[in-house]
Amino acid sequence: MRPATARCLRAAFCRESMSHVRYVLYAEQADAEQFPSLARLFRALALSQLTRAAANYRAVSELLGVYPAEALAHFVLDRTMDNLARSRDAESEAADEFYGPCLAVAKSQREAGVARGLKSSAEVSRRGAAMIDRTFRETQHAAEEPYIDDLCICRACGDVVEGPPPGSCSVCKGSDFTVVV
Amino acid sequence: MRPATARCLRAAFCRESMSHVRYVLYAEQADAEQFPSLARLFRALALSQLTRAAANYRAVSELLGVYPAEALAHFVLDRTMDNLARSRDAESEAADEFYGPCLAVAKSQREAGVARGLKSSAEVSRRGAAMIDRTFRETQHAAEEPYIDDLCICRACGDVVEGPPPGSCSVCKGSDFTVVV
Repeated sequence: MRPATARCLRAAFCRESMSHVRYVLYAEQADAEQFPSLARLFRALALSQLTRAAANYRAVSELLGVYPAEALAHFVLDRTMDNLARSRDAESEAADEFYGPCLAVAKSQREAGVARGLKSSAEVSRRGAAMIDRTFRETQHAAEEPYIDDLCICRACGDVVEGPPPGSCSVCKGSDFTVVV
Repeated sequence: MRPATARCLRAAFCRESMSHVRYVLYAEQADAEQFPSLARLFRALALSQLTRAAANYRAVSELLGVYPAEALAHFVLDRTMDNLARSRDAESEAADEFYGPCLAVAKSQREAGVARGLKSSAEVSRRGAAMIDRTFRETQHAAEEPYIDDLCICRACGDVVEGPPPGSCSVCKGSDFTVVV
């Protein structure tokens, strides 16, 4: 793997690892505010980030060693409605300002496999932002938290899907899903 | 909180988030090699890192916003015996080359609460390195994986303890533990 592409994957791993922990905390906060459905949504987002972080770690550890890794992290822990709004913004920003530029690097270095993964991650983040935004708007105008159907996560790309596991992932064609309870 | 101290805590959060994911992967690898006790040790180490990452995130999100965070990460995913050796080295390095210098910064800025947390984290990493080293040496000279007693994690500082939960944590005096099964 070319060094600049590897740097992008290490940054992705760094970013996703931190986002994973942030979503774990947002889920705890939602539980504390008695929003079990929103807590489940945050747990699903946490698992999506962990799935992507693990995949990037595996991909990049062919260049084994100790490296610095850097990424932007969203340091905000607030009431759940604020956490929802921030998460939507964080997922949007990830798609446009992180995965997009990384994808350009991987393509320019003809790293086709890595590019495919980054393209999936951009799409997963965009869909995540849309799902969070929908939930945010439904919650804003409701007396109670909105009903959120079962959620499952594609074990290959981390896509978060409402409802039971589909036959294949509409982002990456993977067929293995984890249901979040 | 003074900015340089906050930068240290953000770096700690970054490092611990990445270490958390690395240990999750090491646990999966140990499971795949049929080392259930070693898998449990790695899950305990993963939970220790998550506990510390969450505490640092909470501490630093009084300065809310989007910040870059950087840390060294150990990108090695190998056979379990190699993962054990690397983990011992990573925990030693964390104590001496990361938490130690961060502690010096926090003390110089008279951030007493932060300094206390960083001192605990240095000690937790040192003890973790010793526990991993002991396990590594026992495993090296044995036909089977060594017996590892129940493990529990202090929910305040992340210390990993063998055996049932003690009355109070010998690192931070916390009294709340999670048992790792």
